[in-house]
Amino acid sequence: MVILGIDPGYAIVGCGIVNFNENRFSLMGYGAVKTKAHTPFNCRLEKIYDDVSELIKKFNPDAVSIEKLFFNSNQKTAIDVSQARGICILAAQKNRVPIFEYTPLQVKQSVVGYGRADKCQVQEMVKVLLCLEETPKPDDAADALALAICHAHTSGSLLNYKGE
Amino acid sequence: MVILGIDPGYAIVGCGIVNFNENRFSLMGYGAVKTKAHTPFNCRLEKIYDDVSELIKKFNPDAVSIEKLFFNSNQKTAIDVSQARGICILAAQKNRVPIFEYTPLQVKQSVVGYGRADKCQVQEMVKVLLCLEETPKPDDAADALALAICHAHTSGSLLNYKGE
Repeated sequence: MVILGIDPGYAIVGCGIVNFNENRFSLMGYGAVKTKAHTPFNCRLEKIYDDVSELIKKFNPDAVSIEKLFFNSNQKTAIDVSQARGICILAAQKNRVPIFEYTPLQVKQSVVGYGRADKCQVQEMVKVLLCLEETPKPDDAADALALAICHAHTSGSLLNYKGE
Repeated sequence: MVILGIDPGYAIVGCGIVNFNENRFSLMGYGAVKTKAHTPFNCRLEKIYDDVSELIKKFNPDAVSIEKLFFNSNQKTAIDVSQARGICILAAQKNRVPIFEYTPLQVKQSVVGYGRADKCQVQEMVKVLLCLEETPKPDDAADALALAICHAHTSGSLLNYKGE
């Protein structure tokens, strides 16, 4: 099963693709969609849509695993990250890839084994599980790989949350 | 100048198209993109993208005028409306239509003349300015027409807010 993990953002979207087969992982690729500072927001959204669509076409994943959002702080950031996340979901939907979402707690529980693990522990486990020599960079890509691993490790709940 | 106003949402997206020529408005169309209750969220986003794209292709607007979001209350609603708004922006961007955004205050000031106007006053002015016999329904469509009128009445600031 090929899984594309996505760590959503508007300036940087982490992406990681793994193959999970007979209980073993192999790394297919990772990286990040980045847009330069001062890029108009509409152009950021378009680049995210185009690049995520291209990744999906290239790797033909069986599932997309995307982080569920929670915000406590900056409202503008929350709105902008949400707008970009909608774009990632559309790219998956347009290519008919099922979309699953996980909270940071679920990712930590599933990758490290407990929900209060710190970022370094998650990255270390990503490195071990994927048999890498170094921690994947940038952090957003490592987080995306953790999301992909989380989906492989859990049955997952299909993203079909209902509106009113 | 043809202007498409968009009142963003995830269950219902208000849309209104006006032509503003020699200081006079003519109504070209209005309505709403609606998805049924219990529609999976990814399907909602796809329908919004497809329908807004189709409207843009049909009416070939010179500008899209979309409401700027503010949230004080429900975080889940905020995230979902933002995700849907990102989709509307992408549809405009993919069709190379410039996107402008206005706060509710700017819309009221521009359509009614003062920022504390209530919803009914805005709808009444939309009716008068567009020479309609009745207030456009649903409310989301009337709000979208108000956004289009707002853009016609103001020079507008192009949506190019910068990320970090």
